[in-house]
Amino acid sequence: MALPAAFHDIAKRVNNWGRWGEDDEIGTLNLITDEVVRAAAGTVRRGLRVPLALELKEDGVQTGMIPGRVNPLHVMVQVNQELFGPGTVATSDDAVTFGLQAATHWDALTHASHSGRIYNGRPASSITPHGRSAFSGIHTARHVVSRGVLLDVARAKGLDRLPGNHAVTPEDLDEAAEFGRVTVGAGDVVLVRTGQVRQYLAGDKHGYGYPSPGLSVRTPEWFHARDVAAVANDTLTFEIFPPEIEDLWLPVHALDLVEMGMLQGQNWNLEELSTACAQEERYAFLLSAMPEPFVGGTGTPVAPVAVL
Amino acid sequence: MALPAAFHDIAKRVNNWGRWGEDDEIGTLNLITDEVVRAAAGTVRRGLRVPLALELKEDGVQTGMIPGRVNPLHVMVQVNQELFGPGTVATSDDAVTFGLQAATHWDALTHASHSGRIYNGRPASSITPHGRSAFSGIHTARHVVSRGVLLDVARAKGLDRLPGNHAVTPEDLDEAAEFGRVTVGAGDVVLVRTGQVRQYLAGDKHGYGYPSPGLSVRTPEWFHARDVAAVANDTLTFEIFPPEIEDLWLPVHALDLVEMGMLQGQNWNLEELSTACAQEERYAFLLSAMPEPFVGGTGTPVAPVAVL
Amino acid sequence: MALPAAFHDIAKRVNNWGRWGEDDEIGTLNLITDEVVRAAAGTVRRGLRVPLALELKEDGVQTGMIPGRVNPLHVMVQVNQELFGPGTVATSDDAVTFGLQAATHWDALTHASHSGRIYNGRPASSITPHGRSAFSGIHTARHVVSRGVLLDVARAKGLDRLPGNHAVTPEDLDEAAEFGRVTVGAGDVVLVRTGQVRQYLAGDKHGYGYPSPGLSVRTPEWFHARDVAAVANDTLTFEIFPPEIEDLWLPVHALDLVEMGMLQGQNWNLEELSTACAQEERYAFLLSAMPEPFVGGTGTPVAPVAVL
Amino acid sequence: MALPAAFHDIAKRVNNWGRWGEDDEIGTLNLITDEVVRAAAGTVRRGLRVPLALELKEDGVQTGMIPGRVNPLHVMVQVNQELFGPGTVATSDDAVTFGLQAATHWDALTHASHSGRIYNGRPASSITPHGRSAFSGIHTARHVVSRGVLLDVARAKGLDRLPGNHAVTPEDLDEAAEFGRVTVGAGDVVLVRTGQVRQYLAGDKHGYGYPSPGLSVRTPEWFHARDVAAVANDTLTFEIFPPEIEDLWLPVHALDLVEMGMLQGQNWNLEELSTACAQEERYAFLLSAMPEPFVGGTGTPVAPVAVL
Repeated sequence: MALPAAFHDIAKRVNNWGRWGEDDEIGTLNLITDEVVRAAAGTVRRGLRVPLALELKEDGVQTGMIPGRVNPLHVMVQVNQELFGPGTVATSDDAVTFGLQAATHWDALTHASHSGRIYNGRPASSITPHGRSAFSGIHTARHVVSRGVLLDVARAKGLDRLPGNHAVTPEDLDEAAEFGRVTVGAGDVVLVRTGQVRQYLAGDKHGYGYPSPGLSVRTPEWFHARDVAAVANDTLTFEIFPPEIEDLWLPVHALDLVEMGMLQGQNWNLEELSTACAQEERYAFLLSAMPEPFVGGTGTPVAPVAVL
Repeated sequence: MALPAAFHDIAKRVNNWGRWGEDDEIGTLNLITDEVVRAAAGTVRRGLRVPLALELKEDGVQTGMIPGRVNPLHVMVQVNQELFGPGTVATSDDAVTFGLQAATHWDALTHASHSGRIYNGRPASSITPHGRSAFSGIHTARHVVSRGVLLDVARAKGLDRLPGNHAVTPEDLDEAAEFGRVTVGAGDVVLVRTGQVRQYLAGDKHGYGYPSPGLSVRTPEWFHARDVAAVANDTLTFEIFPPEIEDLWLPVHALDLVEMGMLQGQNWNLEELSTACAQEERYAFLLSAMPEPFVGGTGTPVAPVAVL
Repeated sequence: MALPAAFHDIAKRVNNWGRWGEDDEIGTLNLITDEVVRAAAGTVRRGLRVPLALELKEDGVQTGMIPGRVNPLHVMVQVNQELFGPGTVATSDDAVTFGLQAATHWDALTHASHSGRIYNGRPASSITPHGRSAFSGIHTARHVVSRGVLLDVARAKGLDRLPGNHAVTPEDLDEAAEFGRVTVGAGDVVLVRTGQVRQYLAGDKHGYGYPSPGLSVRTPEWFHARDVAAVANDTLTFEIFPPEIEDLWLPVHALDLVEMGMLQGQNWNLEELSTACAQEERYAFLLSAMPEPFVGGTGTPVAPVAVL
Repeated sequence: MALPAAFHDIAKRVNNWGRWGEDDEIGTLNLITDEVVRAAAGTVRRGLRVPLALELKEDGVQTGMIPGRVNPLHVMVQVNQELFGPGTVATSDDAVTFGLQAATHWDALTHASHSGRIYNGRPASSITPHGRSAFSGIHTARHVVSRGVLLDVARAKGLDRLPGNHAVTPEDLDEAAEFGRVTVGAGDVVLVRTGQVRQYLAGDKHGYGYPSPGLSVRTPEWFHARDVAAVANDTLTFEIFPPEIEDLWLPVHALDLVEMGMLQGQNWNLEELSTACAQEERYAFLLSAMPEPFVGGTGTPVAPVAVL
């Protein structure tokens, strides 16, 4: 079964292969220039910091549906251990096992492939079980600091949370931008709020994952037209799930990661930010969302922070 | 064996227990006010971003000396897996096992205890093998964004790297501040460069860990006097190792974490930042160094970034 | 809340502390003598081998109810890796993270403590987060090879599976021994079949764990009277769950492990063995159920085999 | 670079593909018949049990040379936890992360491939990063109980340990069999002692791994001629390392696992067994060496026991 012609049409329009040279590994992160970052720092008015990561814990987001993407098993390896003898200073240490995409995370460009290719036309076979990904590993995305823009689609519609079958369209993004009186521009990291994470926060893990509102297959063109650097939202699957087009699974992943070379973020908690932006009446801010530099990683946990 | 009187004298002088109320769990992070962050954003002139984390990989910093503090075992759990059938979009996923303090990290306030106490006078026994730490877990340090200041002690002395037996003293910190024409103030996150991480980067892991230059037992008073919010450096042990005073192990840990309630960072790569600050002739910048919110964690990997 | 007098009465009657010296760490395993093993070898008539372990896999027995007791996360770290160059012999390797008690396992004597004590009167505090258990770690149980006896309680009653509220009593054990025309003796490893594991094998993990038939608080005396070396069964909790006596949780664990110093096995798959014993009309056999020697482990996965 | 003609010649002579049908997944384990096991039980005279596994611990065999094959990180997830309230019975639990081939283990038939094939001519590509090996996973080797034979090559030569450059030849095996007055036959599991594990037991991990005595490329024919079911020894690499023939790496792995379909065991501690067999003047015994049934595993930890 091949991907349908409709997919390939969009793919062609948003494709960035070669745009930053054939050696490029980071795609649209190239759009975050010093100038963009300077402007981002200029958006800070109050100095308010809003963290966007979900807690990392054994009873976390994952339900076992995705094999190997395990919640953190977080264990103590030392507890008040007096390493240098009784009565000395004691230390405690911990270790963890978890899926890099288990909670709030960035997908690396290598997280998805289609038709045997990853971003910039490299063979998907460059991702191996050992050595991990030879190109575009998450450690190559050295820094993600830019202007962040919240497109609060749910709030713009007067909803706490979009319904499970709602595909967020370009029109929805326009509406949210207008609601926030913000213009999305080159190098921006766009955060799209659906409110879906409220399901998880309220204790309904299964309801959180499925069915889920998410980005429509029509959104990559919208992001491409504005030269957005990265996009994150508050869902498990990023794109609407189950998909809009029967038997076309994960098309947004393929378009964003493979064709455009644009990082995607999932399971971001945008609730506190939604409140803060509404109160401040500002939807643009400085965003720092640094990848943990796992060499060759196809994803990374991230603890993003918005500074308003 | 009890801690010596000399230790307790300093402890009394830097103690912050109760300063932010008996319920406080975050200590000197309270000193990072909105105003400090606004000022930090104001230091951004070029928009340059300098990442400060070491790569996360199996062949990482740890040598096995500290039981349980293991380098990342980073594995693929899916490689180009066509989850929805042949010819569909494929995905790759990875998982990891590692010590939270294995590479570039923050110690939580709970990482150290002495005389049966952790920060704010709580019992050390509140750290347990299950449930982890009941108070001051790393997830309570919700955001670390502030003004960063690089005190480049090595460069100020015209050295690539301090000798292994060099205890960084208050006088050294003054010298480096003067060298950088910067005044350390309330809420600052201070980065102290010894150059020691060059040993690791050059492939000498054992030489990196021991013997190691690091902070003197006299520095906590210096940080306390200036109301510093957090301190990080480019060594494995943070403080000089082996210690300055015979049989007084980890006194700086005890003073910073337990008495002051001040986060410590270790294994930060300050080499690129050293070059950038020297070129820019500026040693203050916006620093984002967000903890990963492991619930009850006594430490966290961190991917800090300086924005100049 | 202290344990009730009724518990302490039984405890006194089955207590083995000091019986094999104050330095003993292995309890009733001392009852497996060379003579017992010779006799066990003599029970082999057909040479049939019946494995008793459940498969180890991510979708295993655990449901998340017991924190930290995680199903195997089994990952490949090398896949057909040509370590010595293209065209050379390739190798594949895997790694795993799991709870030692996650699937078919032995509890070490240290798995339970009560009133601050473990087997042989040692302090429970000898079990620590680092260094694990100083005494009676599973590695001290160097070999478990003996005569195995299947007490097929379910089959003796003409049932596939005992009801969830059925506490297996001494009378039930007598009935099953009579059914199998077998006399339980000193050094035997007794396998008690309830049929409960059929729930797990049929896909109902939650129903498998709760409610569950299991051993009655009255059985330790029965085992003690016969000088049994170890007992295993085909349930998650070993003893009936929820318990027979309100607010008296895990009394069988406390009596078997702490007082008697007798290994307990859980999640053993006795279905194939039940069929084999019925066909052979023999309920005694050679049993090998070797612990994996995790130093200081409070449990161990085990792959037992009955040889008939 | 292809494998040399000399290799292919031997391969042809020892090949067992199709011998037990095209659906067979277990190779020479088919040779362990009920009759062999009956005879094995008959070798038990004293009832002595000798365990053959090395301790599982963080400071174990692995040195980091083989990526991903990590020593056990063994951690406590519960320590004397009173799950049902203060004063109730407490429990302790542990978890572990380790390479399945990290210590005493069996290689599954899938551990090696050459020329794109695994045992029985199946494609090497049937081993995948997810789902692991579709055929001949270690769980298909349901039971390994048979007659064990110790060929004590070192003792037969009057040595504690063979030199690092000693390839154990068919002549050495004959000599050891004669020394032990034992005839290797169909279905036997042969244990070949080099004494090399003494290096590890004495604390020299690096010396243990390299250089190492081990089986010669000429031994597979010897095992094949006798219809041996499996072979294990007391080295890290099983075969002599570095290899006898320049640039022909791991030929014994390829011949045993791929061509013959014969399990290989490594890192077995044969020291205590060597002493016992010498004392008993018997070199054949009952051996139980049960794989842990990791579904699709390409190896397994094993805790073997010899019963004499």
